[in-house]
Amino acid sequence: MSNTQLMYGLHAVQSLLKRHPDRVLELRLAERRDDPRMRALEALARERGTKILRVDAQALQKALGEVSHQGVAAEVLPLAPWSEDDLVSALGEARSPLILALDGVQDPHNLGACLRSADACGALAVLVPKDRAAHLTPVVRKVAAGAAETVPLVTVTNLVRSLKLLKEAQLWVTGADAEASASAAEVDFTGGTVLVLGAEGAGLRQLTRQTCDYMVRLPQLGAVESLNVSVAAGMLLYEVVRQRNNR
Amino acid sequence: MSNTQLMYGLHAVQSLLKRHPDRVLELRLAERRDDPRMRALEALARERGTKILRVDAQALQKALGEVSHQGVAAEVLPLAPWSEDDLVSALGEARSPLILALDGVQDPHNLGACLRSADACGALAVLVPKDRAAHLTPVVRKVAAGAAETVPLVTVTNLVRSLKLLKEAQLWVTGADAEASASAAEVDFTGGTVLVLGAEGAGLRQLTRQTCDYMVRLPQLGAVESLNVSVAAGMLLYEVVRQRNNR
Repeated sequence: MSNTQLMYGLHAVQSLLKRHPDRVLELRLAERRDDPRMRALEALARERGTKILRVDAQALQKALGEVSHQGVAAEVLPLAPWSEDDLVSALGEARSPLILALDGVQDPHNLGACLRSADACGALAVLVPKDRAAHLTPVVRKVAAGAAETVPLVTVTNLVRSLKLLKEAQLWVTGADAEASASAAEVDFTGGTVLVLGAEGAGLRQLTRQTCDYMVRLPQLGAVESLNVSVAAGMLLYEVVRQRNNR
Repeated sequence: MSNTQLMYGLHAVQSLLKRHPDRVLELRLAERRDDPRMRALEALARERGTKILRVDAQALQKALGEVSHQGVAAEVLPLAPWSEDDLVSALGEARSPLILALDGVQDPHNLGACLRSADACGALAVLVPKDRAAHLTPVVRKVAAGAAETVPLVTVTNLVRSLKLLKEAQLWVTGADAEASASAAEVDFTGGTVLVLGAEGAGLRQLTRQTCDYMVRLPQLGAVESLNVSVAAGMLLYEVVRQRNNR
């Protein structure tokens, strides 16, 4: 089982144990951590029949590195990638689905950070093209800090075709572009939403751009040409959540 | 002059040439790039008496790496760091100053990305404590994509004391915390604002927290414990710009 993953953190592990107990192979709890949340997690694991290991807190730190594991790690089966069909099926079950599409983002740190923000903002999935793009590697998983096990990555052959499919499913597609006349806050994100971000510098490809229903710009008050793509994605995802909370 | 820096991009170089011509030692323009913006930049450089070099586009790419340089680079004197006194003096000249303070952010990638977002969102400066924090290194400058030459980094001995000084200067200090009851959109950021973010996992130190006027949370709908700190900073900076545009 060399392709199992280590997840960590009370909330992340608990949430996976609740939703996908079959994916949690083993729970590792640091000795001498004993508080109500930890006890609740342990009770949940017993109920689900999950194997529980008491480990040394230092061993946990060693296995995970400098992260905030809160005394909890779990060996989990990696999240299976979704096909385009899986994504379309999932749309039916989601209310106002939110999807993040990355057009040509090649840096694994950016993909990892995007997965993490997608998780925090309740996105259903992250969509990437098969070519000219970062995919799920150990670096991506590490930067995603567990989100690679919770947010499905959908790799598609033709991003434009997939965006059109999502439009047919009543989602609105919004692309980010430094030259756009509308600010992100001017677009209504309360309905089903796809956010599309391009590679830094190059931006969205022409065909991708033409497929978008809206183009929006992000703050650009300074001297530097463009925001980091994972920060730009975070700002847009934030705006979606803000509008939906405000509804 | 080994400590000069290479900046790139039409907008970034032009903006530095306008505001601080004395810091631009040499302009490097790619041959065969000849458009109105490029001609305007060249005219500006001539007017300022800046040395202009015509270089091979490939040589430019080689010196800069995979970035969107748009055929323009400049050798510049690095931005001198600001002292706390410089910051306080600058406050007098700024309307609704915006400052980003990082409490114990040790990762150079995060500091670089924060500088870049601070530039894009019109922040006056980025404030970091002397100890337990990342400082300006080549990695930080690279990730900042030029923003390290435009946004002053202020390194202070005692962050809490500096925050108090900023409060005395009529700025409102808002800290980010996953457990806060208010969302970022519920705080008024149209006045002078300091945003404070802590290290991932650890968050703000107790004393820093107590110094804040407000604590706000960011989206946390998923399974993963916390956002990447540079994404969280980007979301808060975005919210400030959104509110100010909306005013």
